[in-house]
Amino acid sequence: MTTIDSNQDFNVNFDDIKPRLKHDDYGLFAAVIQQYDTLRVLMVGYMNDEALHRTLTTGRVTFWSRSRQEYWRKGDTSGHVQFVKKVELDCDGDAVLVQVDQVGAACHTGQYSCFDEGGVLPAVVGYAPQKKL
Amino acid sequence: MTTIDSNQDFNVNFDDIKPRLKHDDYGLFAAVIQQYDTLRVLMVGYMNDEALHRTLTTGRVTFWSRSRQEYWRKGDTSGHVQFVKKVELDCDGDAVLVQVDQVGAACHTGQYSCFDEGGVLPAVVGYAPQKKL
Repeated sequence: MTTIDSNQDFNVNFDDIKPRLKHDDYGLFAAVIQQYDTLRVLMVGYMNDEALHRTLTTGRVTFWSRSRQEYWRKGDTSGHVQFVKKVELDCDGDAVLVQVDQVGAACHTGQYSCFDEGGVLPAVVGYAPQKKL
Repeated sequence: MTTIDSNQDFNVNFDDIKPRLKHDDYGLFAAVIQQYDTLRVLMVGYMNDEALHRTLTTGRVTFWSRSRQEYWRKGDTSGHVQFVKKVELDCDGDAVLVQVDQVGAACHTGQYSCFDEGGVLPAVVGYAPQKKL
C-alpha cells in the first residue's frame, strides 16, 4: 500500500536522531498525529525509538501501544492507515509531530479525530490584550 | 491580562470532567497546544487535574512541569502567554487538545513553535492508494 517518493532521501541515519530523543521512564515519547492538509489534530500516541525508526523509514505510522505493550502499525487491523507526510521533533526531543494522510477514521470509535469523540470541554475563553496601533 | 467572554458559560463543573480523565502513573496526561487560527501545533506539555481545571476556568494555559515538579502558567516569566480558545478531550481521556492565541514565541528557545526548534526529521513519505473514480 505504500509508495515511495523518489524525491525523498531514503538514507535515514537514525544514529544521528537517536541522541536527540528524550524518553520518559518507560522509554517513550509523545507522538501528535495531524492531518497534513486540514491540520486537524487526529490523535496522540506514544513511540519508542524503534517505532519512530519504522515511522521514518516505511511511510506509515507505527506506535508503541502502552496498553498492549506491543508495536502497533496504525491501520493493520482497521484499514485506517496513516501515511507519513512530515515528521518534526520538538525542542527538547520528547515529542514528535507527524503530519499524515489519514485513511478513514483516526479514532477507534469511528470518529474522524479522537478529539471529536471526547469533544469540547467547557472553558473560559481568554483574549490577548489589544495591540497598540 | 485576561478578559472574560460574557458569552461563555462560566460554570465549569469539573466534577463532571474528572471521571473522564485517564492519568499516567504520575497523575498526568498530555496537552497538545495549537494556535487557534493557523492550526500550527506549538508544543506538547503535561497537565494534572488541577492544571486542567485552572486552564478551563481562567482563560490561560497552566501546565504541570515534569522537570520542575510545579505548576507552570505559561507566560508568567516570559510574557509568552497562551490565551485559551477551545479545549477538547480525546476518546480515552488521556490527552487534551488546547487551541490558544499564543503571544510571542511558544518555545523557550525563542522559536515560534517547539517543532520549529527541533525541526524536520528525514522521513520516507507514504501515499494513500488512488481512490476509484
